Amino acid sequence: VNSQTVKEAAVEPGGEVVDVLLEGRMYGRYTQELGVYAKEEAARLRESGQRRSVSRTLDLLEYDKGRCAKCRTQKWMYGGLDSNVFLQYLAWVTYPVVLITFSAGFTQILAPQAVGSGIPEMKTILRGVVLKEYLTFKTFVAKVIGLTCALGSGMPLGKEGPFVHIASLCAALLSKFMSLFGGIYENESRNIEMLAAACAVGVGCCFAAPIGGVLFSIEVTSTFFAVRNYWRGFFAATFSAFIFRVLAVWNRDEETITALFKTSFRLDFPFDLQELPAFAVIGIANGFGGALFVYLNRLIVQFMRKQKAINRFLMKKRLLYPALVTLLISTLTFPPGFGQFMAGKLTQKESLVTLLDNRTWAKQGIAEEFDYIGHSEAWKHPQVNVFVTLVLFIVMKFWMSALATTIPVPCGAFMPVFVIGAAFGRLVGESMAAWFPDGIHTDGTIYPIVPGGYAVVGAAALSGAVTHTVSTAVIVFELTGQISHILPVMIAVILANAVAQSLQPSLYDSIIRIKKLPYLPELGWGHHEKYNIRVEDIMVRDVRYITLNCSYRDLHNVLLTGHLKTLALVESTESMILLGSIERAQLQALLSLQLGRPRRLAYIRERAVEDKKRLSVVSNDSSENSSHRASQEVRFQVRGHSGQRCKKCFQPFKAHYFQSHRKKCLQNVTAEFCMSSKITEWEEKQLDEQVNFNNCKIDPAPFQLVERTSLHKTHTIFSLLGLDHAFVTSIGRLIGVVSLKELRKAIEGSVTVKGAKVRPPLASFRDSGTSSSENEATELHKLWDRHKSMPLPREHTPSESDEKSQ
Amino acid sequence: VNSQTVKEAAVEPGGEVVDVLLEGRMYGRYTQELGVYAKEEAARLRESGQRRSVSRTLDLLEYDKGRCAKCRTQKWMYGGLDSNVFLQYLAWVTYPVVLITFSAGFTQILAPQAVGSGIPEMKTILRGVVLKEYLTFKTFVAKVIGLTCALGSGMPLGKEGPFVHIASLCAALLSKFMSLFGGIYENESRNIEMLAAACAVGVGCCFAAPIGGVLFSIEVTSTFFAVRNYWRGFFAATFSAFIFRVLAVWNRDEETITALFKTSFRLDFPFDLQELPAFAVIGIANGFGGALFVYLNRLIVQFMRKQKAINRFLMKKRLLYPALVTLLISTLTFPPGFGQFMAGKLTQKESLVTLLDNRTWAKQGIAEEFDYIGHSEAWKHPQVNVFVTLVLFIVMKFWMSALATTIPVPCGAFMPVFVIGAAFGRLVGESMAAWFPDGIHTDGTIYPIVPGGYAVVGAAALSGAVTHTVSTAVIVFELTGQISHILPVMIAVILANAVAQSLQPSLYDSIIRIKKLPYLPELGWGHHEKYNIRVEDIMVRDVRYITLNCSYRDLHNVLLTGHLKTLALVESTESMILLGSIERAQLQALLSLQLGRPRRLAYIRERAVEDKKRLSVVSNDSSENSSHRASQEVRFQVRGHSGQRCKKCFQPFKAHYFQSHRKKCLQNVTAEFCMSSKITEWEEKQLDEQVNFNNCKIDPAPFQLVERTSLHKTHTIFSLLGLDHAFVTSIGRLIGVVSLKELRKAIEGSVTVKGAKVRPPLASFRDSGTSSSENEATELHKLWDRHKSMPLPREHTPSESDEKSQ
Repeated sequence: VNSQTVKEAAVEPGGEVVDVLLEGRMYGRYTQELGVYAKEEAARLRESGQRRSVSRTLDLLEYDKGRCAKCRTQKWMYGGLDSNVFLQYLAWVTYPVVLITFSAGFTQILAPQAVGSGIPEMKTILRGVVLKEYLTFKTFVAKVIGLTCALGSGMPLGKEGPFVHIASLCAALLSKFMSLFGGIYENESRNIEMLAAACAVGVGCCFAAPIGGVLFSIEVTSTFFAVRNYWRGFFAATFSAFIFRVLAVWNRDEETITALFKTSFRLDFPFDLQELPAFAVIGIANGFGGALFVYLNRLIVQFMRKQKAINRFLMKKRLLYPALVTLLISTLTFPPGFGQFMAGKLTQKESLVTLLDNRTWAKQGIAEEFDYIGHSEAWKHPQVNVFVTLVLFIVMKFWMSALATTIPVPCGAFMPVFVIGAAFGRLVGESMAAWFPDGIHTDGTIYPIVPGGYAVVGAAALSGAVTHTVSTAVIVFELTGQISHILPVMIAVILANAVAQSLQPSLYDSIIRIKKLPYLPELGWGHHEKYNIRVEDIMVRDVRYITLNCSYRDLHNVLLTGHLKTLALVESTESMILLGSIERAQLQALLSLQLGRPRRLAYIRERAVEDKKRLSVVSNDSSENSSHRASQEVRFQVRGHSGQRCKKCFQPFKAHYFQSHRKKCLQNVTAEFCMSSKITEWEEKQLDEQVNFNNCKIDPAPFQLVERTSLHKTHTIFSLLGLDHAFVTSIGRLIGVVSLKELRKAIEGSVTVKGAKVRPPLASFRDSGTSSSENEATELHKLWDRHKSMPLPREHTPSESDEKSQ
Repeated sequence: VNSQTVKEAAVEPGGEVVDVLLEGRMYGRYTQELGVYAKEEAARLRESGQRRSVSRTLDLLEYDKGRCAKCRTQKWMYGGLDSNVFLQYLAWVTYPVVLITFSAGFTQILAPQAVGSGIPEMKTILRGVVLKEYLTFKTFVAKVIGLTCALGSGMPLGKEGPFVHIASLCAALLSKFMSLFGGIYENESRNIEMLAAACAVGVGCCFAAPIGGVLFSIEVTSTFFAVRNYWRGFFAATFSAFIFRVLAVWNRDEETITALFKTSFRLDFPFDLQELPAFAVIGIANGFGGALFVYLNRLIVQFMRKQKAINRFLMKKRLLYPALVTLLISTLTFPPGFGQFMAGKLTQKESLVTLLDNRTWAKQGIAEEFDYIGHSEAWKHPQVNVFVTLVLFIVMKFWMSALATTIPVPCGAFMPVFVIGAAFGRLVGESMAAWFPDGIHTDGTIYPIVPGGYAVVGAAALSGAVTHTVSTAVIVFELTGQISHILPVMIAVILANAVAQSLQPSLYDSIIRIKKLPYLPELGWGHHEKYNIRVEDIMVRDVRYITLNCSYRDLHNVLLTGHLKTLALVESTESMILLGSIERAQLQALLSLQLGRPRRLAYIRERAVEDKKRLSVVSNDSSENSSHRASQEVRFQVRGHSGQRCKKCFQPFKAHYFQSHRKKCLQNVTAEFCMSSKITEWEEKQLDEQVNFNNCKIDPAPFQLVERTSLHKTHTIFSLLGLDHAFVTSIGRLIGVVSLKELRKAIEGSVTVKGAKVRPPLASFRDSGTSSSENEATELHKLWDRHKSMPLPREHTPSESDEKSQ
């Protein structure tokens, strides 16, 4: 056995050499100027923000170095002070607390949207909902710097969610930049496709796993997937992963391109068939564990929210919560203290490397007698069994990770969960190795059990259970560079998913609910006959519309009250026949054209010619009236417009104001007052004119449903086509509108009301206690009761629905 | 170097041992009773047809054994006759010719639908088009037996397409069987989902590659993919792959579950960074190769079709073409003849195993001096260089595979292409090894180049190029059990795809075009502004509809003339307001209820009572008239109905006939004639009655478009929702209908007419010569010209469109 061990050890990648090299180079540069470093990094990132995948990888590499350096600094401070335990403790604790507090504060000040994972937000954005503030440059800077500090603290935090968000930010900024040059980048649906590819890049370069990255991002962000995007995701993710790993080679960290956490299990006999039940046990246990993790995470958030007293105190001192949590966690992992029983001195990466080790740590309950090389010795404690260390590690890290991911810094939960899963797998593997010291295989050769393989299975299963994905299987293969355990991993992941999906929503869906993001939930499958709700039950009957012969004043009023992105155009109020839909921006353009600068100037010039002929004194009263009118109009324009167009609208108005002012200075003050009053009159006249739709872009085929379309069909159409709203027509006449909001309410409502539950594929026995939509349900309940008590409307008479729709 | 070689050889899986074992066991059983064996196998398969994945794997295993046995028999015959070259040749050639001829004949007689790959058909079926005869039990039997024989012949034929088809057949038969018990299996959309999972199973258990299988089947069959199906695919594919490999263990072929073509490349340094250009070259070259393969394959088919003389002759002797092709190919591979220069004596599987070998065959142009163990010696020829052998192998196999896949037997092209790609990769790898005998890596250790890794890259790239998929990368990892070459493989596959997609359609799309299957082509991306065609340009204005107050006679007439699955229900012919749609089957049920047995019997009883009172003689003339009427009705019922319902409809009619006959025997013949005439009268009266829609299932929200909906939007909606047809309405009034057929014509037409091309994502410079739709284009061309010369219809007046729609 000994010779084999030595051979295996020789096969190990030269981890130690790299570490020493890194340490040598880093000490000089990084000691305390973290702030300076962060600024530098941000500047560098800003420069390179245009070339996505390259910048993606550069920042990754930088951050990787940064983290190593910081951890090492912490260790060095801690190591250099080994004469005094108290000083050691201070050094151990100060670092993370300072970093996390800085990260939380920085993020809070610059862009609070950068907090958290980012995957739930991306899921919502890819669904077609606009969450504008999540894709700005500010958020980008906050996310990058905040993430760097948060990860540097050594807390059990992940990076895959933030990476997805950062990649998407890069893509969004890139396409905003490219749209300056016009062309295809102006297309909005193209932007969504770019974001989808960016998500794949994010995961792909986080783990150097292009295939797993693409699949994971699909599973996590999409409901329906266009296969043509798949190709693009692969393209982007492959190049990002490639450049990520190439830089490691150029940097002399690696000799060639290899996997990030390369394992070296034996190839000829990876596992015995009779070990499969053990793998299945890992899968099922991790399924329960994953559900528990999601539940625990949500519980902590809800507990913090409910406790009003704590909440009020923490709201005042926003940085106290992160600092306290960090203090607690780092105190518990302090190596001379409790940390010695749970390999506290290892970073997340080191833990994972040791857990995936191909050597067995224990044989028949006693630690094996080979030298624990490098980090592995952290798991060995003179008094305590390796099993106890592992159990403590799992239990402590479990709640620590669930707690740490609630800190308001940019962070994910994938990596901590992955490590816990690996530890659990290792525990089962070590137990199996202790139980069957000569392996299970019966005939001929002795093949000892490989606990590292169990760790791989456990990692994939737990992270799959928490995120409700199967592609974690692919990620572990790419991460470890070995695919020999494919069947155990697949079986464990599928079982873990089956269990976890039936107990809890995925972590991302849970966050979507906690954050109340506008995401359309899934309809349960096989239950759709139970959703006997029709569009007429949920539609909003009070539709904002414009008629073919409406005046600009009507347009003005409609724009002030509505909230939908497009407005219905009907033939007349009497017939209500739907002709098409017009975008809000188009209508605003029409309005500003009518009241805009050129026409005003023309009018003023005309007036000026007239005024030269006669001079009259006007009362002060009328001027007040005019200024009131003007302010009113400004208010309307500010409220009615949004974003870019707002500025554009203001421009003519302001320009007009100053222009007229300058001109009028030549004349006397009273004439000016007179002018203002005239302008007001002119505006009133303009508003009463009939709208000319000639140059307006009308969508002749807006999406229509009929009143009796089922909820299930509506949901399918909305999710497939990524609709925001659809008009409801009855024999061609507009009678209502359904938007995402109504649909969401109806679906969430039906969870508690109708017995048909909203659930993922395998959720056959999830308790309904997790949904917090009881209050929203009542409304639908009422609707439904009303509907039932009424006779089913076979045919609406025109007069009836006309009344309703007005 | 020598000691290393020995060690590596020892690591090789015990292929030889297994071979010997197999040989020993098989000789007794299989010599010539192929027919008996095939029958037995079919019987066994028929029994086990219900448990899909198990049966799937069983048959796989059986077939695997079968193939081994047959190849071995062929070799044994050939080996035993080494005294006489002519006899050897006869033995070598007879086997494949007999097997292929049998396969072609059997398939032709039983179910011609079983010919070919099956993936194009599945793609069409998953799109929502019903190709009923492709999923019958007959096809299943023909496909299984035909495939077994075709593969046993040793021709360069694949099995992945047929496996997909067989798995889908299993799923279809299974769900047909399960629907007897009712429940969710009756749902049609559920069946489509089952078929999607079955496709994944098919690929998954063909290569023991669950992940690659799922991805490949998605890429090959779908345009838009529901992520919830993904999970199911994984579930099914994992278990099929698991059981496939477990059976190999139980069968003592393998010690434990491993990859199908396990490689053993070194893990620590799989390849150097500077080798990447070589991998990229493989990718690009294979891209061109893949396009050439598709082109060659289509060329052969079209050539055979065009040559009228050959064609007529071959049509008479259907089995001659397969026999001739087989004879040609097996003559060329005859080992003592030309076959000695192209490793002709190896089967496809053996070739692949040797090509993926981790040893280098040549160093500096000279064959290395280690013993070629086992099959590898086939590549070594005393006079000829290894490079020449490889080049000959690639060139010969290339056209042979393209030719062989046109034989009308159940076969795929994936595996032959895969082997050719591996050979090309090996060629590049061996050249690199000869060029850099000590490897490229510059500092320190010598890492010789691994030509086997190049073979893996080449295999993935060529098969990816031919099928236009990226997931072949995943398939090779699962097939070889090693993932160390992930980046080279990904890069090569992406480059190969980029080249191939820009030159040719995928093999499956090419077959879809050749077979003229009703598949909706893709719209090019980025070009959709150019498709300025609207629904009104392509819709059929002559819609079949029924009105609320129509008579049964109208129903009858509409059913006789229409072809759509559902019919529009409008308020009245004048208003044409669309109220909903009714399925054809529902209407047929209405009609048979009106003219059906119970009502007939009631009428006859009534008449009988009346007739007892009076006896009158009726002229022969009226009886003739009646029989004419009856036959007319029968004809209508046969034409109008389909499948199950047809029988049901006949039943009451026949029953009535005999019933009335029996009854009337009591009375005299003239009374019977009178009766018939009365019944005819009664039927006429029934047909004139107004239809009662009360118990009819009306879809209140059929899919509607408006006349100005763009072609792009229509295409998106059709593909996303899998529609068959949609009604076109103008302000609520039905004015036309668009079905898949019209849409397909419009899209294909626009290839040549409008300049906007129908192409896959990367097809930027494909020549348009591949499309054979010039004749279809003219129609649209005319339409378009007409449309242009006419003023754009702003608003159809009611009278105008009413006229058109009738």
